[in-house]
Amino acid sequence: MRRTPARLADGREIVYFDHDGAPPRATHDPRDLPPGSAAPQLRHDPLLDEWVTIASHRQDRTHLPAAADCPLCPSRGGRHSEVPAEDYDVVVFENRFPALAGDAGRCEVVCFTSDHDASFAALSPRQARLVIDALADRTAELSTVPGVEQVYCFENRGEEIGVTLHHPHGQIYAYPFVTPRTARMLSVARARPGLFAEVLAAERAGPRVVASTAHWTAFVPAAARWPVEVHVFPHRQVPDLPALSDEERDDLAAIQLDVLRRMDGLYDTPLPYIAAWHQAPVRADRERAWLHLQVFSPRRAAGKLKYLAGTEAGMGAFSNDVLPEETARRLRS
Amino acid sequence: MRRTPARLADGREIVYFDHDGAPPRATHDPRDLPPGSAAPQLRHDPLLDEWVTIASHRQDRTHLPAAADCPLCPSRGGRHSEVPAEDYDVVVFENRFPALAGDAGRCEVVCFTSDHDASFAALSPRQARLVIDALADRTAELSTVPGVEQVYCFENRGEEIGVTLHHPHGQIYAYPFVTPRTARMLSVARARPGLFAEVLAAERAGPRVVASTAHWTAFVPAAARWPVEVHVFPHRQVPDLPALSDEERDDLAAIQLDVLRRMDGLYDTPLPYIAAWHQAPVRADRERAWLHLQVFSPRRAAGKLKYLAGTEAGMGAFSNDVLPEETARRLRS
Repeated sequence: MRRTPARLADGREIVYFDHDGAPPRATHDPRDLPPGSAAPQLRHDPLLDEWVTIASHRQDRTHLPAAADCPLCPSRGGRHSEVPAEDYDVVVFENRFPALAGDAGRCEVVCFTSDHDASFAALSPRQARLVIDALADRTAELSTVPGVEQVYCFENRGEEIGVTLHHPHGQIYAYPFVTPRTARMLSVARARPGLFAEVLAAERAGPRVVASTAHWTAFVPAAARWPVEVHVFPHRQVPDLPALSDEERDDLAAIQLDVLRRMDGLYDTPLPYIAAWHQAPVRADRERAWLHLQVFSPRRAAGKLKYLAGTEAGMGAFSNDVLPEETARRLRS
Repeated sequence: MRRTPARLADGREIVYFDHDGAPPRATHDPRDLPPGSAAPQLRHDPLLDEWVTIASHRQDRTHLPAAADCPLCPSRGGRHSEVPAEDYDVVVFENRFPALAGDAGRCEVVCFTSDHDASFAALSPRQARLVIDALADRTAELSTVPGVEQVYCFENRGEEIGVTLHHPHGQIYAYPFVTPRTARMLSVARARPGLFAEVLAAERAGPRVVASTAHWTAFVPAAARWPVEVHVFPHRQVPDLPALSDEERDDLAAIQLDVLRRMDGLYDTPLPYIAAWHQAPVRADRERAWLHLQVFSPRRAAGKLKYLAGTEAGMGAFSNDVLPEETARRLRS
């Protein structure tokens, strides 16, 4: 992998991650961009003791542009996108409309491929591995930024999820706090050492395994909250993506592609999903947290979505209309 | 208020709440209904130490029927709905497709009015008060059911929220556990006595008050998670709706109508929203919890919704694109 850092016209960072042997990347951004107006605020919710980001400038962010205006495609034929290069393998840059910025963290966009019409599931194993390496690289680098407490890599896919750009891409949020879900999981794990290993062992012996490799197992969790939900766990405790070995990364590319293709096979149309990387906080619980990928979808039937309504959005209590064993069976077959 | 309990054809409970002086309710349900097949399962998520309900029979629940087939309208002209009466004021009955049932709790439907085309905001103060009395009555009764740990009254309004029936109605979930949000709030309050009173006092002195009466204040919270979010707090600590005085209930009807009408006035179309009653658990923290109503909407602009995507659904970390002070200003004007 070759890593080429550069700056966009308004000062934002961009980093190209190319396969070995790719041509050198031109890195000059000829656009005349105004400086970013990003000033998200962090506010504390005293009742739940949680942080909320208020990012009012995001209301005007780019919303479902035509393919010819895609800001994530390479810059070609005189058109200037967010990526000032004729082509790229994987590229990461600071989000122009960030939910987190300055003292409140940082948001990055990860383009999985220069092919506008592809998807993560359609990548070659080699390209998926390059994406994983890029995420690991960004996690390691953002973990050194003062004030960053947790690095979160994820993909939102599908308009049903609220995706505003179709080009296959993920995002990275570098939070200035440990997120509520991670804090909760680690608080449970502190009270019950061995928690993650026990859950993994129980699921590996159970009826909900979807796929496995030498280093990873993918399963539908016993108490799945979503109509389609798969967790992909490594077989040993590692805090985050940078801690994975070379072999584990190759294996991960393979099982992630396998799982996503199975998910896309459930219905006639590609599945809307969120793929969420649960990583350890930067400064705490590094030996306790267990890296895992959670992929979940609100699609509960061909034409129907699960909504987070009264019970979920109001009380945090999930009700799932689909039996997890049935989801696992469908994904296996 | 006159209370008339009865049974539906398949054995489910139904309770009519009528204004004083209303005609007696016929209570015979002539339908030939199969017994309920409800067997939701409670499953424990070990990683978050939370309960999830798996209710696979709900996949076939009634979905956006035509107005003439509305199951919540009275039974008239030979058509039999879920309410075997020619008319009603407010009626509550057990949900035919419950997310919670048997040992896993209970779900009820609350019809706010027999007028299919009304909305909560369009009710008279007297009718809104009757709804509040019905919710208080059900909360008190469900709190005595063995195994019930928390009673949650709420309204989902609008197809954008996933509503499957348009008739104005709310729901009641009687959970066999304390919900994650309530547990979290009470754990914070245990560590900081006076929390609710302090938050209320700070908001009452601040720039985000939307409306107030002698006994209640409605405000946009400082760290609002949603583009439109209003909390309505009583001025004294009460655990739940049954604990409210007669005067407080009248006042509540007035301020709730006021707030909902202001919310509907924000856009050209009625606002989709969730109205969530935060009540104390049945058996714990009765002197600590502070009853309040939280009304929130995902509408962030005329044609745009906020989605719970990667950061919210994956990490529980909310990002709000709208400044809470601006929402309060728009709701006041």
